[in-house]
Amino acid sequence: MNIQSPSFIIDKQKCLSNIRFMSDKAKTHSVQFRPHFKTHQNAGVGELYRSEGIRKITVSSVDMAEYFMNLGWDDITIAFPVNIRQMDKINLIARKIKLNLVAESTGVVKYLDQNLKSKAGLFIKIDGGYNRTGIIHHDIENISEVVKASRDSSNIELKGFLIHSGHTYAAQSVKEILEIHHESLAIAGNLKNKFPGLMVSIGDTPGCSLANDFTNIDEIRPGNFVYYDMMQYFLGSCSFDKIAVSVACPVVSVHPHKKEVVVYGGAVHLSKEVLNINNSRYYGGCTLLGDNHGWGKLLETCFVKGVSQEHGIISAGEKLISTIKPGDLIGVIPVHSCLAADLLRKNTIMI
Amino acid sequence: MNIQSPSFIIDKQKCLSNIRFMSDKAKTHSVQFRPHFKTHQNAGVGELYRSEGIRKITVSSVDMAEYFMNLGWDDITIAFPVNIRQMDKINLIARKIKLNLVAESTGVVKYLDQNLKSKAGLFIKIDGGYNRTGIIHHDIENISEVVKASRDSSNIELKGFLIHSGHTYAAQSVKEILEIHHESLAIAGNLKNKFPGLMVSIGDTPGCSLANDFTNIDEIRPGNFVYYDMMQYFLGSCSFDKIAVSVACPVVSVHPHKKEVVVYGGAVHLSKEVLNINNSRYYGGCTLLGDNHGWGKLLETCFVKGVSQEHGIISAGEKLISTIKPGDLIGVIPVHSCLAADLLRKNTIMI
Repeated sequence: MNIQSPSFIIDKQKCLSNIRFMSDKAKTHSVQFRPHFKTHQNAGVGELYRSEGIRKITVSSVDMAEYFMNLGWDDITIAFPVNIRQMDKINLIARKIKLNLVAESTGVVKYLDQNLKSKAGLFIKIDGGYNRTGIIHHDIENISEVVKASRDSSNIELKGFLIHSGHTYAAQSVKEILEIHHESLAIAGNLKNKFPGLMVSIGDTPGCSLANDFTNIDEIRPGNFVYYDMMQYFLGSCSFDKIAVSVACPVVSVHPHKKEVVVYGGAVHLSKEVLNINNSRYYGGCTLLGDNHGWGKLLETCFVKGVSQEHGIISAGEKLISTIKPGDLIGVIPVHSCLAADLLRKNTIMI
Repeated sequence: MNIQSPSFIIDKQKCLSNIRFMSDKAKTHSVQFRPHFKTHQNAGVGELYRSEGIRKITVSSVDMAEYFMNLGWDDITIAFPVNIRQMDKINLIARKIKLNLVAESTGVVKYLDQNLKSKAGLFIKIDGGYNRTGIIHHDIENISEVVKASRDSSNIELKGFLIHSGHTYAAQSVKEILEIHHESLAIAGNLKNKFPGLMVSIGDTPGCSLANDFTNIDEIRPGNFVYYDMMQYFLGSCSFDKIAVSVACPVVSVHPHKKEVVVYGGAVHLSKEVLNINNSRYYGGCTLLGDNHGWGKLLETCFVKGVSQEHGIISAGEKLISTIKPGDLIGVIPVHSCLAADLLRKNTIMI
């Protein structure tokens, strides 16, 4: 590959296969599939989804909604507590397409009611145990108030509840991921019981990848599964061969005495997302990138042990050390593909 | 301020004052000042340097060298092990301006000799104890070989040695930072003794900010000091009022029961750079951002305790919780200003 600087390489066939897997699962369980586009933010990956018949999408910012609207997407949920400082742009988008917003307080709902200039859908954010945003799921009194405020508004069309069980990312086993997923189903059941007619949307990649029960769920919004990454691999959400992205990094230095390889590829390419694997800081997996397409197997004894702004420091096995030289390419499988994709948006290649 | 989404706010007067402080220090100690522009990557901040008479700069990538060359900078050191995959662009730059490269092996030096199409300066990277890149400082045999290979080349003009004592960032006290700095001075003295006529360039912000002894040093290349950040503040490199940047983040949600504020401002704006402060994960300091210029005092009881892709979760004191509401702005002082500056290059405002 004629790669000069750190580049985000997307394997089109693996992406397509991941999309079909999740799309088929949604069909099997009769849930709507509204994939999260924050992972890729990429027009070409969007086209892969479109080729599979996907028309409804999720994004995480108003600017991302505008970007995909301009690419022809016309049914978008912004799955982030509404940023009222962007009200003008929200109105611009809501006038043109089907837009769903997310809120979690009567104050913001009333603000939207007064400031929306055309109709918009609304999901109420529910905290299903992740403890980041939303009304805690058992606070029915508070939820009822926001439901009422939304129903009182002429510009808001209340759709239902949005849950993101991001605590699956802290799970220690597949069993624990599935336990969290089943808690979400129970929470969804309770909400649907208390508020008949409203839908429930859930979204984490670990749960959606592993579960085969979507009772009480109307919509799924996973995003990361389109690429997966080392975090998902270690969680057990995917096998290595499903990971659809790699960051091609030029080798700039080889240090045999300390079994390290230095690559051009650091925090501004991979992000500083880190895992703790076998008591080591782990910023990415490693594969060899040759002139052929694809990146082959994970080099089990190699990993990115440190990143500075532009440097990646790879802890390398003897075999790699003895064969690699400056100018070669190492494929770094990112810990968190969403962040690497965001950082390398302008340096992305689909193969 | 009419800010709609996370924005990197630069205080021009503080920047200028930081530039003058370091420029004056360089003059006092008769060392060349070649500031690192990787911190800001910003044309306007470059102009502040130019207004203070600075003409020589440091960058960390070939693309950054090209960017600043196109802005009229004509004496640039790329302080990163040369990436030979970018040889064409290196030749393009070396033809037009004074360019210095960095290498640490005879193999790369010979590659440069064969592939450079015009003269370029060269610094040999020396590992002064940081253990990231470079030849370990006491390996005089290896250093001699690279010196010889460089002197044998007709296209390479050997300038000297480049050291980055990045281990000052792991120091536990100002005393320890100064100890590391004095080790660098001793290493420089030894190199100048062994290789008369070659210069020594050093570069870390903690050492350059705090030290008042630059014996044996010919050039300093600090970068971060132009902005500083929470990392430098906790290291003791600067007082809070010298920090020249803040990320303006819109409040999207307030959770009084758990004393948390959620802002639009996450890993794609602040980076995932994290400190451990009082046994808490710390992703940024907090100030109030009103409609006036500047960001005032650090809110001692508030800090960013978590970041997702777009979310920042702020652990807030009761006073902030009782006064803040969605739509307000919080100024997040980044842990690592270089990474936040890189992420928000397109959303930067100088005040």
